[in-house]
Amino acid sequence: MTGTPHVSRRRLLGYVGTTGAGAVAGAGLGAGVVLAADAGNDPPAASAPPAPGRTIEPWGAHQAGVATAPTEVTELVALDLLPDVDRESLGRLMRLWTGDVEALTAGRGAPGDPAPWLSQPAADLTITVGAGPGACRPGLLGPGPTGFAAIPVMRRDRLQDRWSGGDLLVVVAGRDGTTVAHAVRRMVADARPFARLRWRQVGSWSPTDPAGRPQTGRNHFGQVDGSGNPRPGTPLFDSTVWVREGPWAGGSTLAVRRIRMDLDTWEELTRDEQERSVGRRLGDGAPLTGGMEIDDLDLAARAQGRLVVPRDAHSRRAHPSLNGGRRMFRKGVNYTREVETRDGVRVESGLVFLAYQADLLDQFVPVQRSLDEADRLNEWTTTVGSAAFAVLPGFEQGSWLGEQLLG
Amino acid sequence: MTGTPHVSRRRLLGYVGTTGAGAVAGAGLGAGVVLAADAGNDPPAASAPPAPGRTIEPWGAHQAGVATAPTEVTELVALDLLPDVDRESLGRLMRLWTGDVEALTAGRGAPGDPAPWLSQPAADLTITVGAGPGACRPGLLGPGPTGFAAIPVMRRDRLQDRWSGGDLLVVVAGRDGTTVAHAVRRMVADARPFARLRWRQVGSWSPTDPAGRPQTGRNHFGQVDGSGNPRPGTPLFDSTVWVREGPWAGGSTLAVRRIRMDLDTWEELTRDEQERSVGRRLGDGAPLTGGMEIDDLDLAARAQGRLVVPRDAHSRRAHPSLNGGRRMFRKGVNYTREVETRDGVRVESGLVFLAYQADLLDQFVPVQRSLDEADRLNEWTTTVGSAAFAVLPGFEQGSWLGEQLLG
Ligand code: HEM
Ligand code: HEM
Repeated sequence: MTGTPHVSRRRLLGYVGTTGAGAVAGAGLGAGVVLAADAGNDPPAASAPPAPGRTIEPWGAHQAGVATAPTEVTELVALDLLPDVDRESLGRLMRLWTGDVEALTAGRGAPGDPAPWLSQPAADLTITVGAGPGACRPGLLGPGPTGFAAIPVMRRDRLQDRWSGGDLLVVVAGRDGTTVAHAVRRMVADARPFARLRWRQVGSWSPTDPAGRPQTGRNHFGQVDGSGNPRPGTPLFDSTVWVREGPWAGGSTLAVRRIRMDLDTWEELTRDEQERSVGRRLGDGAPLTGGMEIDDLDLAARAQGRLVVPRDAHSRRAHPSLNGGRRMFRKGVNYTREVETRDGVRVESGLVFLAYQADLLDQFVPVQRSLDEADRLNEWTTTVGSAAFAVLPGFEQGSWLGEQLLG
Repeated sequence: MTGTPHVSRRRLLGYVGTTGAGAVAGAGLGAGVVLAADAGNDPPAASAPPAPGRTIEPWGAHQAGVATAPTEVTELVALDLLPDVDRESLGRLMRLWTGDVEALTAGRGAPGDPAPWLSQPAADLTITVGAGPGACRPGLLGPGPTGFAAIPVMRRDRLQDRWSGGDLLVVVAGRDGTTVAHAVRRMVADARPFARLRWRQVGSWSPTDPAGRPQTGRNHFGQVDGSGNPRPGTPLFDSTVWVREGPWAGGSTLAVRRIRMDLDTWEELTRDEQERSVGRRLGDGAPLTGGMEIDDLDLAARAQGRLVVPRDAHSRRAHPSLNGGRRMFRKGVNYTREVETRDGVRVESGLVFLAYQADLLDQFVPVQRSLDEADRLNEWTTTVGSAAFAVLPGFEQGSWLGEQLLG
C-alpha cells in the first residue's frame, strides 16, 4: 500500500465517485462524459467485467483533457507551421483536427484512418489542442490570451531546442500507449500539409490506488504531486484556469517544462531532508505542519525555534500566499528515457511539468521566477525544455476548434 | 469498436474470466494469483470501484510473466556482467533480486528501497529474469537449456549493438509506466555491484476490449497479433514453452527481436494487400479462409484458382505445419520512439517481438529463417535488435531465483 489516506481529497470533495462504468468527472467540467456501457455493443451482464475506462466527450465550453482526471499515459507533440500557412489554411487544419478529435475520442477511426481498429472507446482518451506564440499573431490566430507569450528563460534553465518551443501542441491522454500513439499519429499525419513535428514527449502517471480509487499520484522522487492544486469544478479552479473574456474565453494557457530529476543524488538524502525540501510528508503527502493530504501548509509553524517548512522549501516558494495569490493547475507526467554513454546506457528520469492558468505571464512566470531564485529542489532538478501554448477554447457539436478565432 | 468478436478465443477456452478483482489467470500456470481485495487494507464496499488490476504471486514451477496475460506496459532491460563476477557473486545477485521480485510484485518497496511509495499492489506487476549466452557458461550458470545460444544473424537483419545482446535480462510488465519504471530502477540499482545496464526497451499493449474483457491486442499495423499462439494452461502451451528436464526444467528461452515497422509505406497498401500479407482479416483477426479469430488457417484453400493465403504470407511462412510442427509463444509489445532528423523529429514505430520456447535453436531459429527467406511483411519491417535469453526456472517461497543452477 502507499501511505496515501484512502479518503482522498478528491473523494472527500465529491470529485470522482468511481472509475470504470458510471464514473462522473465532476460537475462544472466543460467536457461531457459518456458511460462506457453506452458506447459498447452489448449491455453489461452480471458476469461482465467493468469497462476499463471512460469514453469522454470532447464538446463543451472548454476542451477535454484539462480538468479531466489524470490517466496512465500522456503523449505531447509540438508542431511547427509550414511557412506558407495562413489564417485560411490554419482554419482548414483545425476543422480537420476537430473531426479527428471527435472520432478518436469516441473510439472510432479518424476520417480516412488507415487503421481504425487501433481506436477503442472506454479508453479514457482526451485530445487537447494548443497554439504557440508563433501561431498567435496577425494573419494566423491573432493575439493570444492576455499575458500569453514565450516563457522567459530562467537563470537556472539548461534548455535544449529538442524539447522547446513549437507553433502547435497536441496533448493526448489515455489508458494505454498503443491507443494514444495511434491518435497522435493520426493528428500528426493529418497536419502534414500544414505543419511538421518539432518534438514529442511521452510520460506516465499512476492515477488510481490499489483499490481502484482515484489518487493524486506520485512523481519519480516518490512525492505525492498535485495536492495543492485547485480542484476541478470549483470556482477557484475556474478562475485559476480559464480565460474569461474575449475570443479566447473558455481557453487557457499551458506551460510545458521538461525537468530532469537526478534520482541518484536524491536517493542519498535522508527522509527528513527529502521531506523538508518540499514541506510535505513522503508517505501520504500531508503537510509537515500536520493534517491530511488535502490540507494547506501552515507556513508560520515553528518547532524548536525553526520553521517547519523551511524558507527555501518548494511548497513555500511556490505557495499562493507568497506569490500574491497566484495559482496554477499542475498536471505533470513522469518520463524516463535511456541515454547512451561511453560505457553503456543510463536511464534519465524526470517530469514533464504541465501548468494550466488563465494568464501565463501573471500567474506562471512569477511563481517560476520565485522557484528559480530559491527552491531547495533545484539541487536535484534541471529544466531542459520549455514551451508555452494557448489552449484553444472548447467547441460544441457542429462547431470546430478555434472557430471563435478563425471563423 | 474494434471488429474483434466479443467471444474471444481465450474466453471461449475459459482462459480468463474477468479482469479486476477475482480474475484468475487460468489453471496450470506456475505463478499464483492473489485477489487484489486480499492485498488491500480494507474490504471492498458496495460503492468501491473494482481493483484496477491483480497482485500476482511470483512463486511456482515457472516464473511469473511468461504465461501471464499481457499488460499495458512492458519494460525490458539487458545488463552486462562485470568482468570479476563469478558463480558465487552471481548467486548473491540472484538472491538479492529474489527479494526485490517478491517485494515489488506484492506492492511493497524493495528491501532498502528509497521510494517504497512508488510500489503498489494490484498493479498487474510481474518481473521475469533471464540469462544471456555470456552468463550460461562454466564458472557462472553452466550450460544453458538444450539448444540455447545466440540467435544467428539473419540475412535481412540490420542489427544495432544498441538493442542487441546482454548477459542478463529483466522483463517488468504492469499497468502503468511509473510503477514499472520504479521496479526496473530497483532491479538495476541492486545489480550495480555485479552488472551494468546495456539496453532498455519499453513498449505498450492494449490487452482489454472496451468492455474490460481480455482481448488479443493489436500491433502498430493494426493487426490482431497473437491469435495463433498456444493457449496458456494447455498441454500444447506447456510442451511449447517450458524446458522439461535437467537443471533448467521449468525455465524457458526467450528471443527478443526489435523490429522497426514502416507505417508510412504500410498505410499506402489497400486493405486487401494488407490482409493478404498475413493471411488474416484486419477487422477481427480471423483467417482469410473463414471462421473466427481462434481458428487456424486453411493453407490449401483457393479462390479463383489462387491460394487465399499467399505463398509468402506471414502466417503461412511461420505456420507450424510448414515448419515441422515448430511453435513458439509470442508476446510482443508496441514501441514508439522519436528520432531526430535534419528538419525536426520523426516517430519510429515497431514491435519488441518476444518469443518463448523450450528450445531456441530447434523452435525459434528455423521459423525465423523461414521468415527471413520469404515473408511479405519483410517489405515493411526491419529487425534492428536481437538478443537471446534463457528464462530461469521458477522458484518457491523460501527458495531463490536460479538456486537449481547456482545453489
Ligand atoms: C521536477 C520538478 C518539480 C517537482 C518534483 C515538484 C514537486 C512538488 C511537490 C511534491 C509538491 C507538493 C505537493 C503538491 O502540492 O502538489 C509541489 C507543489 C507545488 N509546486 Fe512543484 N514540483 C516541481 C516543479 C514545479 C514547477 C516548475 C512549478 C511552477 C513553476 C511548481 C509549482 C508548484 C506549486 C504551485 C505547488 C503548490 C504549492 C502549494 O500551494 O502548496 N512546481 N511540487
Ligand atoms: C513486426 C514484425 C511482425 C509482425 C507485424 C507480425 C504479425 C503477425 C500477425 C498479424 C500474425 C497473425 C495473428 C497471429 O496468429 O498472431 C502473426 C502470426 C505469427 N507470427 Fe508474426 N509478426 C511479426 C514478426 C514475427 C517473427 C519475428 C516471428 C518469428 C520468428 C513471427 C512468428 C509468427 C508465428 C509463429 C505466427 C503464427 C502463425 C500461425 O500459427 O498461424 N512473427 N504475426
